[in-house]
Amino acid sequence: MESPMELGEKEWFACCGSVKFAQEMASAGPFSNYEEALSAARDIWFNKVDVNGWLEAFAAHPQIGDSPSKNHKSPTSAQWSKGEQSTALATATDSTLQELYEWNARYRQKFGFVFLIFAAGRSTPEILAEIKKRYNNRPIVEFELAAKEQMKITKLRLSKLFPANAETAKATPY
Amino acid sequence: MESPMELGEKEWFACCGSVKFAQEMASAGPFSNYEEALSAARDIWFNKVDVNGWLEAFAAHPQIGDSPSKNHKSPTSAQWSKGEQSTALATATDSTLQELYEWNARYRQKFGFVFLIFAAGRSTPEILAEIKKRYNNRPIVEFELAAKEQMKITKLRLSKLFPANAETAKATPY
Repeated sequence: MESPMELGEKEWFACCGSVKFAQEMASAGPFSNYEEALSAARDIWFNKVDVNGWLEAFAAHPQIGDSPSKNHKSPTSAQWSKGEQSTALATATDSTLQELYEWNARYRQKFGFVFLIFAAGRSTPEILAEIKKRYNNRPIVEFELAAKEQMKITKLRLSKLFPANAETAKATPY
Repeated sequence: MESPMELGEKEWFACCGSVKFAQEMASAGPFSNYEEALSAARDIWFNKVDVNGWLEAFAAHPQIGDSPSKNHKSPTSAQWSKGEQSTALATATDSTLQELYEWNARYRQKFGFVFLIFAAGRSTPEILAEIKKRYNNRPIVEFELAAKEQMKITKLRLSKLFPANAETAKATPY
């Protein structure tokens, strides 16, 4: 077991952009390993952060296919976001990027928040298929689904704060 | 069948304080009777109004036990709200009102929106029991539950716009 790292609100906020999430993680810690931090994160995200906090965290993400650098509240999060979207960007063409851009706008128009997907390792055609499918959901169904995608992203990012445990992170969905 | 009434955004907004709801009702109408209006209202509320619209509609309600007159965007809604809470107010004592006030504050602190309940015909002790029970819910569960309570309130208010059909309104839950 590695010794606890010096992790504070700034690092937790980079994992999930809700102030309440970051504050609750800071007061629940320090954690002696990744599993402990993940367990606390799940409890805080699904049981303690309210719906306004979910919307706040969603708003911290760039639109998929867009550069995460502009208006980003956390430089660490911006850098991670870029890495998470690397497969998508490598498999994108001008026309699929244009289609994704249009679907992002339709999605935001219907649901009132950005389309959120655990993008790591997913190609642009896969992401396009997902956004088209999810667009048909009722707003409340999509809201909860987006929160689960956020938890997958949070989980991957937490694993980067505990490098020794990064492999474990891949084994379970969220 | 009565002839269609002159109903516009103002009346729909008094039934449910989401601008999107009022606009969609206005463009879906005119309705020739209560059942038609109710069916459209359900579809719009659960399938078209997004989570921000739900929060907007919740915010249009006074805290239960409070006077609805201050800061109310719709005078009709304020008057209806007063009537809906008449049983609660008639059964309230200073100490139950104080307890309700404290639980409302706890509820809002946890969930980020006002405690919403279809109050018509319910006593203050009943409402107190409900808020204590619902306080234990996960935020997303409570969010959807509040939206269902809003639909019950909307339904009762719609029936007042179609007086000939007011009796039918009592037969089904929402």
